[in-house]
Amino acid sequence: MVIQQTSSSLVDILRQRRQKLASLIDFPAILWSGSSNPRNFQANVFPFRASSHFLYFAGLPLPNAAIRLEAGKLELFIDDPKPSSALWHGEMPKREEIAQMIGADGAKPMAELESSLADAATIAVQDAATWTQQSQLFNRWVLPQSSPQGIDLELAKAIVSLRLTHDEGALTELRKAAAVSIAAHKAGMAATPKAKREAEVRGAMEGVIIAHNMTTAYNSIVTVHGEVLHNEQYHHPLQPGDLLLADVGAETEMGWAADITRTWPVSGKFSSTQRDIYDVVLAAHDACIAKIRPGVEYGEIHLLAATVIADGLANLGILQGKAEDLVEINAHALFFPHGIGHLLGLDVHDMEDLGDLAGYEAGRTRSDRFGFSYLRLNRPLRPGMLVTIEPGFYQVPAMLNDAKQSSKYQNIVNWERLSQFADVRGIRIEDDVLVTDAGSEVLTAALPNDAATIENLVMGNW
Amino acid sequence: MVIQQTSSSLVDILRQRRQKLASLIDFPAILWSGSSNPRNFQANVFPFRASSHFLYFAGLPLPNAAIRLEAGKLELFIDDPKPSSALWHGEMPKREEIAQMIGADGAKPMAELESSLADAATIAVQDAATWTQQSQLFNRWVLPQSSPQGIDLELAKAIVSLRLTHDEGALTELRKAAAVSIAAHKAGMAATPKAKREAEVRGAMEGVIIAHNMTTAYNSIVTVHGEVLHNEQYHHPLQPGDLLLADVGAETEMGWAADITRTWPVSGKFSSTQRDIYDVVLAAHDACIAKIRPGVEYGEIHLLAATVIADGLANLGILQGKAEDLVEINAHALFFPHGIGHLLGLDVHDMEDLGDLAGYEAGRTRSDRFGFSYLRLNRPLRPGMLVTIEPGFYQVPAMLNDAKQSSKYQNIVNWERLSQFADVRGIRIEDDVLVTDAGSEVLTAALPNDAATIENLVMGNW
Ligand SMILES: [Mn+2]
Ligand SMILES: [Mn+2]
Repeated sequence: MVIQQTSSSLVDILRQRRQKLASLIDFPAILWSGSSNPRNFQANVFPFRASSHFLYFAGLPLPNAAIRLEAGKLELFIDDPKPSSALWHGEMPKREEIAQMIGADGAKPMAELESSLADAATIAVQDAATWTQQSQLFNRWVLPQSSPQGIDLELAKAIVSLRLTHDEGALTELRKAAAVSIAAHKAGMAATPKAKREAEVRGAMEGVIIAHNMTTAYNSIVTVHGEVLHNEQYHHPLQPGDLLLADVGAETEMGWAADITRTWPVSGKFSSTQRDIYDVVLAAHDACIAKIRPGVEYGEIHLLAATVIADGLANLGILQGKAEDLVEINAHALFFPHGIGHLLGLDVHDMEDLGDLAGYEAGRTRSDRFGFSYLRLNRPLRPGMLVTIEPGFYQVPAMLNDAKQSSKYQNIVNWERLSQFADVRGIRIEDDVLVTDAGSEVLTAALPNDAATIENLVMGNW
Repeated sequence: MVIQQTSSSLVDILRQRRQKLASLIDFPAILWSGSSNPRNFQANVFPFRASSHFLYFAGLPLPNAAIRLEAGKLELFIDDPKPSSALWHGEMPKREEIAQMIGADGAKPMAELESSLADAATIAVQDAATWTQQSQLFNRWVLPQSSPQGIDLELAKAIVSLRLTHDEGALTELRKAAAVSIAAHKAGMAATPKAKREAEVRGAMEGVIIAHNMTTAYNSIVTVHGEVLHNEQYHHPLQPGDLLLADVGAETEMGWAADITRTWPVSGKFSSTQRDIYDVVLAAHDACIAKIRPGVEYGEIHLLAATVIADGLANLGILQGKAEDLVEINAHALFFPHGIGHLLGLDVHDMEDLGDLAGYEAGRTRSDRFGFSYLRLNRPLRPGMLVTIEPGFYQVPAMLNDAKQSSKYQNIVNWERLSQFADVRGIRIEDDVLVTDAGSEVLTAALPNDAATIENLVMGNW
């Protein structure tokens, strides 16, 4: 449990959030923080991660706590540590001290929560011990894998509308997460020449994150097989001709995330084929960011990425046809099968615990179109939204073999030409972009992404 | 999921374990591996940790799998990855390939498990999704927090009797975990002079563990407040006069753990008071290890530690009286309140998911005596057992204030003399000791623990 002195400005920010919530709902809300998950036995737990909705209004990652929000007021429910816990866990702040730190308007033991539930809405927490408790106390199912209903849905929508755009308190934390993630990526690049396998680069990167007293916001991807999109293996040896793809992001002590991907050559030098494709992905990345401003549909950004990639691949002779026509038949998706990005905040896919409630504008649903179905965000952009922009190029054997056999893409892809790019298995470039009144601000801009500077960072010329 | 090619010797080892189990029980056993716990949303999970009992017989950390053990045969239940999973997770081995890797005698999809349950025993897995499934399939409660009953208890006892002593396959893994943990501690010492706060030392240590494609076996303790026994905060600044206590252990990909504690001076130089107490703790550590051999009661080892510490503190003038008399009234426990150690294996507190079934000889229960109630192991030692030896000295304010006020210890502790040792808040020295036919082998012996060498490691003189 991280309980350090909080600044009065945090209390102000938290109070503003509670006030805003009160302007959107006229019923009480009860949010649990959750509890630790046992790992291999009860006393050996995974690190505690408080529910993001709780963190948003309570500010501190307090385990086994709940808050009741009503009319802008916050009531904290938490038990004081048992006297015997001082031996094992040290002197912990008492309920009243914690209440003061987060600007609570009242504080009670957990047992009193039961009498404060009437007509209240809630959101399911991820850990089973807590959602079981939620379900029992409310005498209805409160399940993390189900869509909320009734007032729970009203509450979820209200919270989404708050969390969709970030206040200054959030941005301060998000910038911290970005800065540490940038340092981690630089350390990863610098560690690569001496590393023998992926795990060593990962160790260098996560070591930086841990050294800043942060945690990873998601399971890192650090791999020479970037074509496996969610690769969580780290045992592959590094070969001089490999590209290493690292998708690694830090999360601050208060839970705010960054999400950065860079791809660099193990040798410190892109091959000409790697460089060609890298520059296509970077062109898509830059074009998308240039287009970001309030009012623009995020789906249009995705389409732009698809078009730039299709165009680039056509220029390289890998695809045959005009970019727009290629996108029309989803040819880009053979190499760029995922969405251009997602919301970022307290969660790396922000509010994905609520399904598409945050990512999709009301009335919109996922497309079943190849290459569009994985789009996690489909809304017009607004100032204060933080999104990732993460175009990529991948040669997924299962997909390309399929395409080669289907008549649809047989003459669209120049398979012989493609075979010359065999040393490009997976490239992704991902930055975190804040939508501003004027357009956008790249929170992760301090980490270079042009091929030449990347090479220099790997080779230590900086 | 880590699925690398396994060696034929692993298959032999696994088969031997299954045969041994068959010699102890005459009913089938079904063991689940478990599933990942969601962190802040369903798709963002904590790293998967397979159940230790599953790992012991199946060898590989396969998520969402089960094994049926009967008469020395193993039947694997696991679903083949969906075709769509190749895009996200790459080509994974098929059921039949995995079955071959672990020397299974049969392999079926998960759905067929239901018809193989009759008269079988099981052990609860930690994650709620899996124990719920276990409970439903068996139509009885299978809960991780409850003691097993009936044939489940018979199975648990049989597994305990196997896992209590380690075979060569286990020892190979345990030695790997020890070696990487040793490297981590050396890195932590070397990182200390430049570090500004605890987290930086932790980052250096865990970075090494990650770089070896291992994970931490438990949440690391890296703190200048070693007097908080389970301190999991890492934000304290390092001051030149501080001692830093690091309890950090690696776990191999197959789940085998190490558990090492070292305490070193931030400045690279123990003060004379720190050195005095350090040498008392080290004397207890060495005396305990010297006494380890088959047939010796682990409780006697604990008593020996208590006596050596009491004696050392008496010699320093902190306690007043003869060592035996001081231990008789538990005066040692004012400064050494925990047990001398525990079993170590696939779990850092091995098989603690079964309560005291593994740690306590049949018929024995926890003492309620101050300083003895936390003893996790109370058995005669046998060749092949791996135990930790971890004496310590702590000044826990809550406990010492209590003692100062109680008449019992008022004249036992020389409070004025004690106040001269204010710069010693917490010291622990922990090694992993294998009981051998000849006596013992310290698996972590390659990490120095004498004060002078520790100083040199911190100062980089090596
Ligand atoms: Mn992302
Ligand atoms: Mn230990």
